[in-house]
Amino acid sequence: MMNIDLRLAADSFEIADLSLSHIRLMNDQRYPWLLLIPRRDEVRELIDLPLEDQQILLQEINIISRMLQAFWQPDKLNIAALGNVVSQLHVHIVGRFQEDEAWPKPVWGSGDAQKYLASDANKLIMRMRKHLEPHI
Amino acid sequence: MMNIDLRLAADSFEIADLSLSHIRLMNDQRYPWLLLIPRRDEVRELIDLPLEDQQILLQEINIISRMLQAFWQPDKLNIAALGNVVSQLHVHIVGRFQEDEAWPKPVWGSGDAQKYLASDANKLIMRMRKHLEPHI
Repeated sequence: MMNIDLRLAADSFEIADLSLSHIRLMNDQRYPWLLLIPRRDEVRELIDLPLEDQQILLQEINIISRMLQAFWQPDKLNIAALGNVVSQLHVHIVGRFQEDEAWPKPVWGSGDAQKYLASDANKLIMRMRKHLEPHI
Repeated sequence: MMNIDLRLAADSFEIADLSLSHIRLMNDQRYPWLLLIPRRDEVRELIDLPLEDQQILLQEINIISRMLQAFWQPDKLNIAALGNVVSQLHVHIVGRFQEDEAWPKPVWGSGDAQKYLASDANKLIMRMRKHLEPHI
């Protein structure tokens, strides 16, 4: 088992494990917002992953980005590895819309999360798990 | 020749062309901040690049990240492809310090750039070109 930073875990829902990354949905219905957390301990920077792992992560970024596009048709994807608050390596993929709350600014640190209703989150998570099944 | 968005060009200095990406230094001495702009026309999203190009971009992210670490020893790297304002695909690599102006928030949209003195920028650009020479 892999340790996930408690702050990441508290703000998000578990979706699935791909080959390298644990995938989570951020609990903020203002944006379709997914996290990829490579299941490697003590890695803080993208470039601290071995190159083979980086290449798998890149494939998984493609899988999750395409799922996000298929589900929400965003105007733009924002992909980022920041880690200033939570240093455990995690990649954000956020679908952005010209009419969303933070546009055109980044979503991090912008306003307060609007949490999902449990039933909405569950439906969404089930749909995503089904979509990701071929990749698991 | 490749067309670079005028806003990107106006806010940054040319450093070098790697195999895929044109590399620029953001004209903001608050942060060591580099841009990688893949020399492919009309590409907006990372996942719109062919996978071979994505893999080269990943290698170039490693090269630029390691240069940034070697030159500045930042506490954290921030790596992001956003593109909400300038849609031409570009990847930011920013060296962050716990005492920098925006920490722990992202740098985008935070305060005003502090431009380099021309002589400082020139010295830095020359050092970076020398460092990148083996990769060109």
